[in-house]
Amino acid sequence: MLDKTSGSKPGDEIERLISLMSRLPGLGKRSARRAVLHLVNKRESLMRPISEAVSDVYDKVQKCVECGNISTAARCGICTDESRELNKLCVVADVTDLWAMERSHTFLGRFHVLGGLLSALDGIDPNTLGIPKLVERVRSQPITEVILALSATVNGQTTAHYIADQLTNDSKVLITSLAHGVPVGGELDYLDEGTLDIAFKSRHEL
Amino acid sequence: MLDKTSGSKPGDEIERLISLMSRLPGLGKRSARRAVLHLVNKRESLMRPISEAVSDVYDKVQKCVECGNISTAARCGICTDESRELNKLCVVADVTDLWAMERSHTFLGRFHVLGGLLSALDGIDPNTLGIPKLVERVRSQPITEVILALSATVNGQTTAHYIADQLTNDSKVLITSLAHGVPVGGELDYLDEGTLDIAFKSRHEL
Repeated sequence: MLDKTSGSKPGDEIERLISLMSRLPGLGKRSARRAVLHLVNKRESLMRPISEAVSDVYDKVQKCVECGNISTAARCGICTDESRELNKLCVVADVTDLWAMERSHTFLGRFHVLGGLLSALDGIDPNTLGIPKLVERVRSQPITEVILALSATVNGQTTAHYIADQLTNDSKVLITSLAHGVPVGGELDYLDEGTLDIAFKSRHEL
Repeated sequence: MLDKTSGSKPGDEIERLISLMSRLPGLGKRSARRAVLHLVNKRESLMRPISEAVSDVYDKVQKCVECGNISTAARCGICTDESRELNKLCVVADVTDLWAMERSHTFLGRFHVLGGLLSALDGIDPNTLGIPKLVERVRSQPITEVILALSATVNGQTTAHYIADQLTNDSKVLITSLAHGVPVGGELDYLDEGTLDIAFKSRHEL
């Protein structure tokens, strides 16, 4: 009910840190309070390293000018890696999605990070996401396949269709998207009907 | 499966920050990754203030020498507040519990923060918690009531009984503990049998 730890006066510094931490995704006021107290209790083993690490990231990390990935250099490790396939471009909504693709070791081309998904409600339009820049990139580079690795949500699919529309003017490029179906290790019982329907229709011979 | 974002090389700085953040209570590897990315995306509006706030707290916040509360001064705001009742001492396990008591505005005396609960499994004994120091404090100050505001768990109750035993040598002090019962707004249906049993036995006339 009361947000402030009024009366206990733990100091404005702590209040401020709690309030900032509670703005991180996944942390509310209560968990931010616990996290800050944990920091205070682990002053040398955790608070000091975190303080240095945040300041380090602030000083050094920037967005790759080419793909939007985050990196300590102007062009990220993926964009400067000459061994990667230059003709394949994977479009993702966010850097976390790029990291997820990289962890799967399945894609060896380059990325384009949109930084979000089209959403009329949140006022995110094609220009906010830099879609004209993506179209320009596909046009100017020797790209033959654009893989739209966007989430299977309304916004994700709207964004995928919009990008596909923009790119089809350029007939040389193949536009693909991730397959839908049963997740590996997933039980049918827990699957929603939409996924099951798609998985059934896309069945293949064993 | 793979912990590292190997291949994508977002930089050791980011890896280090993610790994440190994932040691905070309530954050795992995945949520730490999201939190760090959120910081990078909100470079000026969030990362910079958090960086300054953590460093501020690191520089200024310490434990109150009297009660164990955290504070920017050697003795905390509660211990130096002469308007509070000097004869009542509330014993809590952690600073978060002190904050919770303060938010309820129900107690106007002073506190003693143990910094944990007795636990044979975790090797936390009375000396770790500074219980001899608490006994000494009760003996040397004009305290007439010690309220044991410890959780209703096995460790909480063990700690409460141990402290009560240590303090009863000093016959002038009244030792009390929080009442158990139905939480305000709580539905009986969701209550465990133990609480319901206690609430029933402690029933009072309306």
